[in-house]
Amino acid sequence: MSQTPSATLAEFTATLADDMIPDAVMSRCEDFLLDTFGSMLAGYPARPVKSIRDFALAMGPAQGSAQIIGSTRTTSPLFAALANGAAAHMVEQDDVHNGSVFHPAAVVFPAALAVAQETGASGRQLLTACVAGYEAGIRVGEFLGRSHYRIFHTTGTAGTIAAAVAVGRLMSLTPAQMLDAIGSAGTQAAGLWEFLRTAADSKQLHTAKAAANGLTAAWLARDGFTGARQILEGTQGMGAGMSSDADPARLTDRLGSRWALAETSFKYHASCRHTHPAADALAQVMQDNKLSADDIVRVVTHVHQGAIDVLGAVTRPETVHQSKFSMGTVLALIALRQRAGLPEFDAALDDQSVAAFRDKVTMERDEEVDTAYPERWIGKVSVTTRDGRILQGRVDEPKGDPGNTLSRQEIRDKVLGLAQYGNTLSDEQLHAGLHAIETIRGATQVKRLY
Amino acid sequence: MSQTPSATLAEFTATLADDMIPDAVMSRCEDFLLDTFGSMLAGYPARPVKSIRDFALAMGPAQGSAQIIGSTRTTSPLFAALANGAAAHMVEQDDVHNGSVFHPAAVVFPAALAVAQETGASGRQLLTACVAGYEAGIRVGEFLGRSHYRIFHTTGTAGTIAAAVAVGRLMSLTPAQMLDAIGSAGTQAAGLWEFLRTAADSKQLHTAKAAANGLTAAWLARDGFTGARQILEGTQGMGAGMSSDADPARLTDRLGSRWALAETSFKYHASCRHTHPAADALAQVMQDNKLSADDIVRVVTHVHQGAIDVLGAVTRPETVHQSKFSMGTVLALIALRQRAGLPEFDAALDDQSVAAFRDKVTMERDEEVDTAYPERWIGKVSVTTRDGRILQGRVDEPKGDPGNTLSRQEIRDKVLGLAQYGNTLSDEQLHAGLHAIETIRGATQVKRLY
Repeated sequence: MSQTPSATLAEFTATLADDMIPDAVMSRCEDFLLDTFGSMLAGYPARPVKSIRDFALAMGPAQGSAQIIGSTRTTSPLFAALANGAAAHMVEQDDVHNGSVFHPAAVVFPAALAVAQETGASGRQLLTACVAGYEAGIRVGEFLGRSHYRIFHTTGTAGTIAAAVAVGRLMSLTPAQMLDAIGSAGTQAAGLWEFLRTAADSKQLHTAKAAANGLTAAWLARDGFTGARQILEGTQGMGAGMSSDADPARLTDRLGSRWALAETSFKYHASCRHTHPAADALAQVMQDNKLSADDIVRVVTHVHQGAIDVLGAVTRPETVHQSKFSMGTVLALIALRQRAGLPEFDAALDDQSVAAFRDKVTMERDEEVDTAYPERWIGKVSVTTRDGRILQGRVDEPKGDPGNTLSRQEIRDKVLGLAQYGNTLSDEQLHAGLHAIETIRGATQVKRLY
Repeated sequence: MSQTPSATLAEFTATLADDMIPDAVMSRCEDFLLDTFGSMLAGYPARPVKSIRDFALAMGPAQGSAQIIGSTRTTSPLFAALANGAAAHMVEQDDVHNGSVFHPAAVVFPAALAVAQETGASGRQLLTACVAGYEAGIRVGEFLGRSHYRIFHTTGTAGTIAAAVAVGRLMSLTPAQMLDAIGSAGTQAAGLWEFLRTAADSKQLHTAKAAANGLTAAWLARDGFTGARQILEGTQGMGAGMSSDADPARLTDRLGSRWALAETSFKYHASCRHTHPAADALAQVMQDNKLSADDIVRVVTHVHQGAIDVLGAVTRPETVHQSKFSMGTVLALIALRQRAGLPEFDAALDDQSVAAFRDKVTMERDEEVDTAYPERWIGKVSVTTRDGRILQGRVDEPKGDPGNTLSRQEIRDKVLGLAQYGNTLSDEQLHAGLHAIETIRGATQVKRLY
């Protein structure tokens, strides 16, 4: 191969056309956009998101071509990317690519949507650009590897490249310009985990800035502003400076045949991921046997050891955040409300029926489940009914993973729950937004979503 | 010490008052602001700077409180910091702190000036804030060390902290807020040397973004947006992620008694630094002996080996850039024009008198000079005159270093040369700007400079 990995990645993403992308991948991209719309609406009112939005409003123009999702305000694309990027990751319900430990949606859609609204791209152009962003960002995350993730927030760093590529594709950058955009994105890439120690607000800054900085890089590249040609694998590039196990082969892994976007998982329940397999297994056994919560006297969850390590400490949650780490609370919401979303958690804390069900739930380490982990997250429960039966529930992939993905209706329901949680749009605006996204592949021009 | 180094640095910079700063340091800070004004004017028309400025104008408001230096345009502080930060480092005539290999002016003044124009701070408040930015940024550069500088552009990384601290001080952040600002700055800090391999435009992006991102961090901190409390020395902070020889003791080195700003050097000649000692020695021997260029038939420069390594290849420069690496050309400009600034270099390439003098100049390795390097940059020349004398010239510190600093008149002359080079302001605007800066310590409110 005479081209460098960076150049190969730039050429692939700059020349990616909608007819090269399988229909299922385009459709899944639309699913993720819909899903992210919900995350933006839920995150909109949060204090850190408001801080970043207020900064954008103070520094940006009073109006512009791009929407601040969750409001009727518009601004320039840069500030829409910034504000929407901050919102998209706030409630941690946006999608995740397991292998790269990277949240593509939170950085790709805010940047690409803002620029599509500015340029009047078609819906298919927007989705094609976002696919390019996912494919590049996930591979950069895989390239940077585990040593990078130990210190750097990959969604901030790889996310800057992902956003630049998505915007670059929307702007029809040439391969050489795309390489410049990747160079200027990589030299701005940042985000350190240090903020976790005191639960500081940096996570919102990371996604906001990844989206905004990626957009900046692509915009400058279109104007002839040059960037490093090997910012990823070069001897003074990201891999050299920010990783000790960077693997350049990952950057170009099966480009055009492997669709990394399709490997990306939805987050379904608004709880710790370790509760998801059991929650899904309980839902299945209840549905198969037409059980109501009242029919159940006991639930034993058969889990991997990691679930006990993380969740075992929480028996009587005292905060909403803690309740998301309580296996009993999560299963109570599934049994009682058929849903463990953000509004359900907010309402659960003082709900006696939730507390009563919670105390029926225990965890036991299961050999099969523990051995399969972490490659597979098997969910197994044993449910004892009031009439004395012991029923077994099982799922082999938690809801939201590619092998057990969400139906369009489930995504819609999730978005409605998230929108209700954010409570920032009218029903009319919300449904206009849903409609705009669900018909976006036929849109000749991406306009305001509502 | 019960406080962390980051907290100590935050408290010092948040509580730094003008009466704690020696007059000579305040005065030197004003000198550097004046010097940087010239660098901004010279850099203004350059293509990469225009790209960043055009981006700022496309994304920002049509007018605002802060000036884009070099034009009559105004914008919001963020975009003024961005545009002026891009310009300040373009012609590489801005100041440098040798020990930290950091260019403080290019990131501190663009951010602080923009915010002072927004808030209506006094001139002394502006200078105090800039001193805080220099003191913090230089120590962060020293903390990050040589291993950092091998891959990261310290002016981009440490520069983000420097800008945040300067803006934070202008905004009267509390020590806790300043710590938040440093946290949010550090988690945005970026800039890789990889661009050098193909001479890409990233250097302008690094200074622009350091200024803008630092401003963002401080602005958010004032609004209650929290940041990591040990972004510098923490186990998932900058030192851990971006250095292998980080030394936290450097962060707080003699705060309040050692003034790192006063250790900072002006760049006097617009040429490679390796030519400066000999240029100064020639100027001195010519002045002492009242020689004109015509009186000189030969100049032998006695240099360190590094000068021969870098400059030896250039005997007949073919580009303006190469001529800055030609010892003969630099000395010819000193002899013929008494100045080796940007306009002199632009005019030199096709000037036969410059070429004729250039060929009289040779380099010889000198044991004393080579041994003293790099701690001391001694300049020694032997000048043979037309009437047969051999005269010796010597300087022990090149012009611009703290021990051989520029007079106010020399700075003014440098700025006039830089302004003429940029050719973007009228004489009236230029002199209004000079006057505003030279009287800034008495200004009750920082306004537009011209």
